[in-house]
Amino acid sequence: MTLSMYQASVPVFLSMLENLSNILSRAEADATERRIDPNIFLTARLAPDMFALARQVQIATDHAKGAPSRLAGREVPRYEDTEATFGELQARIEKTRNYLKTFEQKDIDGSEDRVIEIKGGGRLFSFSGAQYLLHYALPNFYFHVTTAYDILRHNGVDLHKRDFIGGS
Amino acid sequence: MTLSMYQASVPVFLSMLENLSNILSRAEADATERRIDPNIFLTARLAPDMFALARQVQIATDHAKGAPSRLAGREVPRYEDTEATFGELQARIEKTRNYLKTFEQKDIDGSEDRVIEIKGGGRLFSFSGAQYLLHYALPNFYFHVTTAYDILRHNGVDLHKRDFIGGS
Repeated sequence: MTLSMYQASVPVFLSMLENLSNILSRAEADATERRIDPNIFLTARLAPDMFALARQVQIATDHAKGAPSRLAGREVPRYEDTEATFGELQARIEKTRNYLKTFEQKDIDGSEDRVIEIKGGGRLFSFSGAQYLLHYALPNFYFHVTTAYDILRHNGVDLHKRDFIGGS
Repeated sequence: MTLSMYQASVPVFLSMLENLSNILSRAEADATERRIDPNIFLTARLAPDMFALARQVQIATDHAKGAPSRLAGREVPRYEDTEATFGELQARIEKTRNYLKTFEQKDIDGSEDRVIEIKGGGRLFSFSGAQYLLHYALPNFYFHVTTAYDILRHNGVDLHKRDFIGGS
């Protein structure tokens, strides 16, 4: 057995998005309990020029839907980026998880050497499928999921690393 | 070609640790420029019950040295966790990068199904090598590198996502 491109992508995104969904549920419950306007969490950011929580969740799902699509040679589904409530963010995560479930092993396996081109910051990046997944999509995805967690922890939501890692 | 366990581990840790080193260099230079005691950055945290910057860097390197060691069946090198300056954290990152370079493809490839047991929070977790790398070591590693970045951004250090992703 070797590691497959499917295994290194779809199940990783699926489980981390489930953890992110649970983290957001905890945050929403905490807002209710402490009588905090949920918008305060949704618009919270760690620095004035960093994205707020809602945008972090949007971008995390963008990488989760983008990576398997590009590896499989499918068009990346477009989302409107209009989510402004916990419920709408949860729906976006759920939609992304359902989309991820449409991929089968064979759709993604063998994409190690597929040429993937990404536009970012006015530049065009060209990767092999393996480089794209391991050195671009996954680090970006983890960056935004972690930062969503960090924003909530900074705002006093009672979360633990196991909520981020999941599986316990 | 398929994805190899080596490819999904050692080069990922190596490049992200290089990025983390660059981020810490930027932070140290920023402290000098803004006449901020470097200890303020090193002991900064996002919540009272989260780890400070120095500890985030220590734990990131722990996952980076731990994962390939366990996958290869080597004993994990012990570090003393005494780093209290930027220079000492840089030395720890450098030591970890040099250790990572001692692994060859053949040391790690084929470890997908090796049984890996990890103690955490008083529990014993048992994984296959692939599960351990993809669902435990990498998410933990990214969590601590991202949180180090987030702590510094929150403290006004001028960093950008490309510093985290690297390669540009």
